[in-house]
Amino acid sequence: MKAVGLLKYLPIDNEESLFDFETEKPTLEEESTILVQVKAISVNPVDFKMRSPKEKVEAKPRILGWDAAGVVVEVGSKVTRFKAGDEVYYAGTPNRPGCNAEYQIVDEDLAGHKPKTLSFAEAAAYPLTMVTAYEALFDRMGLTFDTEKNKGKTLLIINGAGGVGSNAIQLAKLAGFTVIATTSRPETNAWAQQYQPDFIINHKEDLPTQLKALGFPNTDYILCLYDTGVYWKTMAEIIAIQGKICSIVETNELVSLNLIKNKSVSFIWELMFTRSMFRTVDMYRQSEILDEVAGLIDAGKIKNIINPDLLLSPINAANLRKAHAQLEANTAIGKIVLEGWE
Amino acid sequence: MKAVGLLKYLPIDNEESLFDFETEKPTLEEESTILVQVKAISVNPVDFKMRSPKEKVEAKPRILGWDAAGVVVEVGSKVTRFKAGDEVYYAGTPNRPGCNAEYQIVDEDLAGHKPKTLSFAEAAAYPLTMVTAYEALFDRMGLTFDTEKNKGKTLLIINGAGGVGSNAIQLAKLAGFTVIATTSRPETNAWAQQYQPDFIINHKEDLPTQLKALGFPNTDYILCLYDTGVYWKTMAEIIAIQGKICSIVETNELVSLNLIKNKSVSFIWELMFTRSMFRTVDMYRQSEILDEVAGLIDAGKIKNIINPDLLLSPINAANLRKAHAQLEANTAIGKIVLEGWE
Repeated sequence: MKAVGLLKYLPIDNEESLFDFETEKPTLEEESTILVQVKAISVNPVDFKMRSPKEKVEAKPRILGWDAAGVVVEVGSKVTRFKAGDEVYYAGTPNRPGCNAEYQIVDEDLAGHKPKTLSFAEAAAYPLTMVTAYEALFDRMGLTFDTEKNKGKTLLIINGAGGVGSNAIQLAKLAGFTVIATTSRPETNAWAQQYQPDFIINHKEDLPTQLKALGFPNTDYILCLYDTGVYWKTMAEIIAIQGKICSIVETNELVSLNLIKNKSVSFIWELMFTRSMFRTVDMYRQSEILDEVAGLIDAGKIKNIINPDLLLSPINAANLRKAHAQLEANTAIGKIVLEGWE
Repeated sequence: MKAVGLLKYLPIDNEESLFDFETEKPTLEEESTILVQVKAISVNPVDFKMRSPKEKVEAKPRILGWDAAGVVVEVGSKVTRFKAGDEVYYAGTPNRPGCNAEYQIVDEDLAGHKPKTLSFAEAAAYPLTMVTAYEALFDRMGLTFDTEKNKGKTLLIINGAGGVGSNAIQLAKLAGFTVIATTSRPETNAWAQQYQPDFIINHKEDLPTQLKALGFPNTDYILCLYDTGVYWKTMAEIIAIQGKICSIVETNELVSLNLIKNKSVSFIWELMFTRSMFRTVDMYRQSEILDEVAGLIDAGKIKNIINPDLLLSPINAANLRKAHAQLEANTAIGKIVLEGWE
């Protein structure tokens, strides 16, 4: 089969940083896995982070990629969620070879049924960022879709125009929260706008001042999608009494926990790979989440997050290098998707 | 009425650090407050912390004290939970004069009905540490009394022999958790033992090694009752995947949040005064908690945490100075209680 891989870290403008190669089609060996023919993939910052460790040198090419849609071609003996022919979408796990390949082994507990109303390309844009947004709001912060209870409760999404932000805005609006997203550039502002948060403010300007002006000096929940340390003091200032802060972005800064003590605040990490990396007993939640979201998408309640201008074809090393380069430069708005094999 | 107060910080061996004085009996002015005749009080580390700010100089004596049991003598026009003659126990709020006085105004939402089977002295030992322990486990970490669900789940209580620890061990055992408490001295070990945690380990020795030896290399929940910064790295190491850490003790150390990221861990502060200080809409939870615990106590499910050897009488400045001195020196085991007026 065709695949794209790397042997060691090289700058993305080097043709060997990601290269095309031929390899054996994987064979199903585990009872609870499925073999998927990959039709479309998406690219996330985690891809270039996983490409980057300079000390890692492989004997055989390493395959990246954690966002895909495709067709099930074979299922393990204990698989109950899928059968051959089913269309699926999933993020997968860093413990297995990624989706930058024609065929891939996936744990059934990590895959969802592809939304029926979406193309493979549109579906591939969602899994990693959607599972992240969903887990952050509902599994980590413990929020619910109880719109009556959530009425009047505020959620601030710092850096709201990325993939996770786009999904989080939509999920939180469906759940009935007042959603305030931050962006900075006109392009990111326009992108976030289409998901209809209640307010958009500028994270290059003072957040407390802008929140006060909106009439929300404190927010009940904060989802931090930018360096946690950079926003720590600001979040400590604006979080509500007994509020919750959830972040997905690590930081090199050391922080003062005391700043959030008097308000009895919670700080909660969300890492989309925690469940699959450690194979937790509740790993199947990711399958459930993707199925639930597919229902919301097919009901017209969740909008596309693919950027049609960033749809590349075919899936190959040259296009993947373009995608990595855009993510590294932080110039992409909306999800970059690659579709089809040559 | 009689009261004990201070005008400014003085070392506890100074007779003016806390002194007896006569003052006006307070009058009920707010609709949702009750006037209580104080029969017994307990003393907590917060008392000497509140006594300590050196810059604070008062024109009139300031009254400390946040643990009391007594009798309701008058109720505000909107009070529904209590009537004159009811016996109550409560911690109160730093926003009002404390319980080191014959009479005290208390928010009805912060008071519970005194357990019927306890003396005033025994009851006064509980409120502050019990509400702290209860809020930490159930309101902050979101645990429940569902013993079936909690079976096999582990809770580590760091510094388990204090007031909060003694209560937390008992509540967590009632909820069905496997409870591991840490102590260090033979006396604190013996004290914690009477509340029957499943295991006691020594926090002067390596916790991960001891936990591994017990067969619990990771614990699902940690309640930190000692300087959070001192235990941060250890807690990050031993907390389970998707585990929760709740702490009540501030720290001067800056911490690396990254250490708990890959496991998607939650860090949650519990401050017993958050609800009353900020007068949150759910402040009434403290009344509910105290009533619920009174039921558990009267059913024989919660043991006394008063140390009979540390029961002082009467309530006066000399005995309060003794109590503060013992807490400052960290030599008390079990709760110090003062009872009756001369």
